[in-house]
Amino acid sequence: MIAKKMIKMVEGSSAIRAMFEEGNRLAKEVGAENVYDFSLGNPNVPAPERVNQEMIRIIKETDSLTLHGYNKSNSGFEDVRKTVATTLNKRHQTNFTQKNIIMTVGAAGGLNVILKAIIDPGDEVIVFAPYFGEYRSYVSNYDGVLVEVSPNTETFQPKLSEFAAKITAKTKAVIVNSPNNPTGVVYSEETIKGLAKILLEKEQEFGTDIVLISDEPYRELAYDSAEVPYLTKYYHNTVIGYSFSKSLSMPGDRIGYLVIPDEVADSEQVLAAANVANRILGYVNAPNLQQKVVAACIDEKTDIAYYDRNRKTLYEGLSKLGFTCIKPEGAFYLFVKTPIADEKAFVAAAKKYNILIVPGSSFGCPGFVRIAYCVAYETITRALPKFAELMKEYE
Amino acid sequence: MIAKKMIKMVEGSSAIRAMFEEGNRLAKEVGAENVYDFSLGNPNVPAPERVNQEMIRIIKETDSLTLHGYNKSNSGFEDVRKTVATTLNKRHQTNFTQKNIIMTVGAAGGLNVILKAIIDPGDEVIVFAPYFGEYRSYVSNYDGVLVEVSPNTETFQPKLSEFAAKITAKTKAVIVNSPNNPTGVVYSEETIKGLAKILLEKEQEFGTDIVLISDEPYRELAYDSAEVPYLTKYYHNTVIGYSFSKSLSMPGDRIGYLVIPDEVADSEQVLAAANVANRILGYVNAPNLQQKVVAACIDEKTDIAYYDRNRKTLYEGLSKLGFTCIKPEGAFYLFVKTPIADEKAFVAAAKKYNILIVPGSSFGCPGFVRIAYCVAYETITRALPKFAELMKEYE
Repeated sequence: MIAKKMIKMVEGSSAIRAMFEEGNRLAKEVGAENVYDFSLGNPNVPAPERVNQEMIRIIKETDSLTLHGYNKSNSGFEDVRKTVATTLNKRHQTNFTQKNIIMTVGAAGGLNVILKAIIDPGDEVIVFAPYFGEYRSYVSNYDGVLVEVSPNTETFQPKLSEFAAKITAKTKAVIVNSPNNPTGVVYSEETIKGLAKILLEKEQEFGTDIVLISDEPYRELAYDSAEVPYLTKYYHNTVIGYSFSKSLSMPGDRIGYLVIPDEVADSEQVLAAANVANRILGYVNAPNLQQKVVAACIDEKTDIAYYDRNRKTLYEGLSKLGFTCIKPEGAFYLFVKTPIADEKAFVAAAKKYNILIVPGSSFGCPGFVRIAYCVAYETITRALPKFAELMKEYE
Repeated sequence: MIAKKMIKMVEGSSAIRAMFEEGNRLAKEVGAENVYDFSLGNPNVPAPERVNQEMIRIIKETDSLTLHGYNKSNSGFEDVRKTVATTLNKRHQTNFTQKNIIMTVGAAGGLNVILKAIIDPGDEVIVFAPYFGEYRSYVSNYDGVLVEVSPNTETFQPKLSEFAAKITAKTKAVIVNSPNNPTGVVYSEETIKGLAKILLEKEQEFGTDIVLISDEPYRELAYDSAEVPYLTKYYHNTVIGYSFSKSLSMPGDRIGYLVIPDEVADSEQVLAAANVANRILGYVNAPNLQQKVVAACIDEKTDIAYYDRNRKTLYEGLSKLGFTCIKPEGAFYLFVKTPIADEKAFVAAAKKYNILIVPGSSFGCPGFVRIAYCVAYETITRALPKFAELMKEYE
């Protein structure tokens, strides 16, 4: 009955659901407090209090037809887009106007919109392993071809020479994600400059335009004052996909935006196509109230100190136990090398200790596991002895 | 730069935008009160007061991580889906459970989700002219082939014999929309029974499953106690796409649902595929707060008397002026025969009187225009003399 393309996806999804149900089963069996669920990137720091305050204020103060009606433009409220542009300009010394901003149903919505706008069947989209597994589905939605650059498992910075070699006349886009899911690594300015240089050279070589899509849900989650370069300043054909899911802890509200700068080739046309894609993919417009709330809360910050304590405790704890992983500079994930090559077997072994983690092969990088530390601090301190027991199996 | 498929869509969208900008220009020139904008299906009856009251209550009372976090299932909150199922069972004597309900980003989101779940490239999707023009884009998103059944311009009920003749082994879905946009016609029980009979026969003839997708944003907008049959009761492979955009006047909130009954072939698989489609199309889940609000307001009603007065005044007014159109039983549109065959020329002529309406060719039915009467009553009374002047041009 279902579409052929969906059959494998449903099977994959059943595996994730099986894990989820296993977690529920475990919770019933041993108590929720004895299940160490590090599987999901769902923020456990509540949204800043001001989010709810502004929501209520906006509901009370906004004319009902404006609050609940269709937006005049599928790209969203003009004042909201203006606030986003102004804030970006202040933070990053850019020159955006509301015209460059399209409000979207989270970054997932934004990535789908820009891919729908630019990808023809067979176009190649390059990603750097390890990468967020959903990119596979998003690219496949528009019949694009995902091209993986293999991981540098020392630094987890993109391998630039392999990247250059994999660009062809069919390369239409490159997706980067920094701070990175699943490694927590921030791509350095040096990396970005190298990436931009290669892209410019290849655009000239092939006479093509290659869009650098920067997926930035973790931009505001950078530790130790790590600098996260703003990519539109390094390369002309850059499109930003942003989400408030992590910065304001509101993933269930489904709100983010795209930035399509004037410097992008045919920018007017790309903006128009993205506006149409926002409509015909069925989003129509990002939810109204959430648009207005994020504009009102655009300078609010999540409690990064909370994640930072988790980061340090988990990183140091696991390192002491003999696990190897790169110290993350951002996001809320540790990407840990497994003591055996078959990380799926390791994930299965961890489950015996009620530890739920995600195999690296989900991110195009086997031999590693992702541990999401957006959990209660106590989950980490209580899980560490379990990790110790687990590690003993491999000594 | 943009995808080939998008080029024509951007051009089409520019035409609509041009109309929109023309409206803005006119409003500046002659004053907004002298522009008779009947072009958009954007409810002008405010959302019931309880919508805002419940929004505020839910924001105050709900745990922040539940209110703003990811849903456990991409299909939405369990309690919300249960409320929807229970309400449908009470109203329509059906037997749904929460399992059959998937909360979506409006009906536009729901239609995209079910089409993504079932359509393979080349699959045929039948629609009955006149039909909501966006179906073209939704079907094209998944490389389906739109097959039109020509309109019965007397009754605007589907032409069943032509329908039967157009079903092939490649027919995967049929989309119906009743009360109908753009005609306001409610498909009769006789029509639905005839449609179901043909579908069952053709399924047997071809050994296929054909999904009847019922797009129902206007279900609650039926006048004079018109009965709107609930299609799952007439045909096993029926999927409902519902929206609260019109029933609660909240189109900008982007909230609706799909019903996928157990009677649908491979229903478990279809539900799983729709759940995955909801995720990978980037919706992830319908916005949380809006899910909870529609559950809390599920028995609220819009002010249908307001639309009804508009309907009668406009229908009677235009009939007196010599215009021909079917009296709508639902929705908030009149579909009027134009005094000349070229309805686009008529639309252009109307603009001279500051009347903005949509050509029937946008709905696959030239020779007609759609007049959306979800406007202020005064817009109608003040527009009628202008329609009189316009009609004089054709006497």
